[in-house]
Amino acid sequence: MNRVCFVGAGPGDPMLLTLRGAALLKRCRAVFTFPPLDQSFAGLIGDRPVFDPFDFGFDDLLARLDMLLTEGDVVFLQPGDLTFFSPFQALIEALGDRAEVVPGVGVANAASALLKRTLNLSGSCTRTILVSTRALAESPGAPSLEDVARPGVTLLIYMNHYPLAELVARLRSGYGCNQPVALVHRVSLPGQRLLIGTLDDIAGKAQQCPFWGPQGRADLTLIITGEALGARADRGWWDKRREGGHRHRPV
Amino acid sequence: MNRVCFVGAGPGDPMLLTLRGAALLKRCRAVFTFPPLDQSFAGLIGDRPVFDPFDFGFDDLLARLDMLLTEGDVVFLQPGDLTFFSPFQALIEALGDRAEVVPGVGVANAASALLKRTLNLSGSCTRTILVSTRALAESPGAPSLEDVARPGVTLLIYMNHYPLAELVARLRSGYGCNQPVALVHRVSLPGQRLLIGTLDDIAGKAQQCPFWGPQGRADLTLIITGEALGARADRGWWDKRREGGHRHRPV
Repeated sequence: MNRVCFVGAGPGDPMLLTLRGAALLKRCRAVFTFPPLDQSFAGLIGDRPVFDPFDFGFDDLLARLDMLLTEGDVVFLQPGDLTFFSPFQALIEALGDRAEVVPGVGVANAASALLKRTLNLSGSCTRTILVSTRALAESPGAPSLEDVARPGVTLLIYMNHYPLAELVARLRSGYGCNQPVALVHRVSLPGQRLLIGTLDDIAGKAQQCPFWGPQGRADLTLIITGEALGARADRGWWDKRREGGHRHRPV
Repeated sequence: MNRVCFVGAGPGDPMLLTLRGAALLKRCRAVFTFPPLDQSFAGLIGDRPVFDPFDFGFDDLLARLDMLLTEGDVVFLQPGDLTFFSPFQALIEALGDRAEVVPGVGVANAASALLKRTLNLSGSCTRTILVSTRALAESPGAPSLEDVARPGVTLLIYMNHYPLAELVARLRSGYGCNQPVALVHRVSLPGQRLLIGTLDDIAGKAQQCPFWGPQGRADLTLIITGEALGARADRGWWDKRREGGHRHRPV
């Protein structure tokens, strides 16, 4: 049975595609993806036809996929991957067994690598929370951003819709203190920018920064905040772990 | 300047390595990794020498890296990637500019793909929280597991140290209701197992399940719970997004 493979494209750099994703691209019948991925992955897509999924209404898209599946596998090259805030869930459900998902490098993974920081750090951060400010604000009964911003939390904010000055005021009110913060703009895409500061100074820094819009917010920017960004890791932990005999229990 | 490249190895399947990770492996001087990755990646590692980083104390490891770096790049092939619960932070800090991080597919990404589920879903889940039960329990001032398990939260639990019956009782108490739950064991590794149920029935189901230990817990098992696992995605959202004119704003 031919399949529609939802392939995590990584955050934008084609070298962050998985070997499995590359193999599927090479043998598929057609590719669905968005700009700029149609351009940046052109070398891997080769001469296979490329469609933009949002050129189709939902039912028309399913009909087109039915047709293509009679001729071969189809690849959806999706930005990041399915894990967080993917728009493809309804489509995957409608396709049932004909859908396969190949995980990819997400924006959170790429931002962590750029910062050279693990987002949970023993002694300073016990949990990581991924939110969309828009989803919080639009969901009745959901906590406010202030409620989730707490000491010990590394917060990853997708699809921020607040002006930066308002966003950092909310975060400061939640944390109850100043915290390190990073604005990760277009990670691994052309135009990548990283701005690092604290809740107290980031809005000022961003004013000198051309990627940050006049309204004080920017699309395609992941915002990360919390103690883990500024903490020093404990070197002694390495030797303790080694002696503790659980050397080979990586998760 | 030669570098130590911390390459996210993906959750275990070598086909989930990135193209960049594969290119670095092919040209490096030496590889540091753990079993079983030394075996499963043998085809990509080729004849480069392989070391287990936990055979070295922290200072001895730095001295060995200093020596190897005079001869070429070194790759740390690390399970998953740096993003969540990585043991390599202290090492990366000690290496400074000589460390480079290449993001990879994490366990969360792989589990989401296996489940064919995005972990935040408009209308049913506004935030995803990644925790280690051990880190919560051992950190003074941290909330309890019951505190973070709330309706609207998709919870990813790493390094669970509770027997399963106790874990699900705590989760049920936090959520205040039954919830879908998935035990994702050794994702993408040989012996991968997926057990799906609810907080009410998963402990009983796990009793018939040989991967789940006699103590009611298992290493290398990610536990995922929350409404998003059971929700149906709204098909109408696709057409609304399409008409809304923000077709090309994937994060």
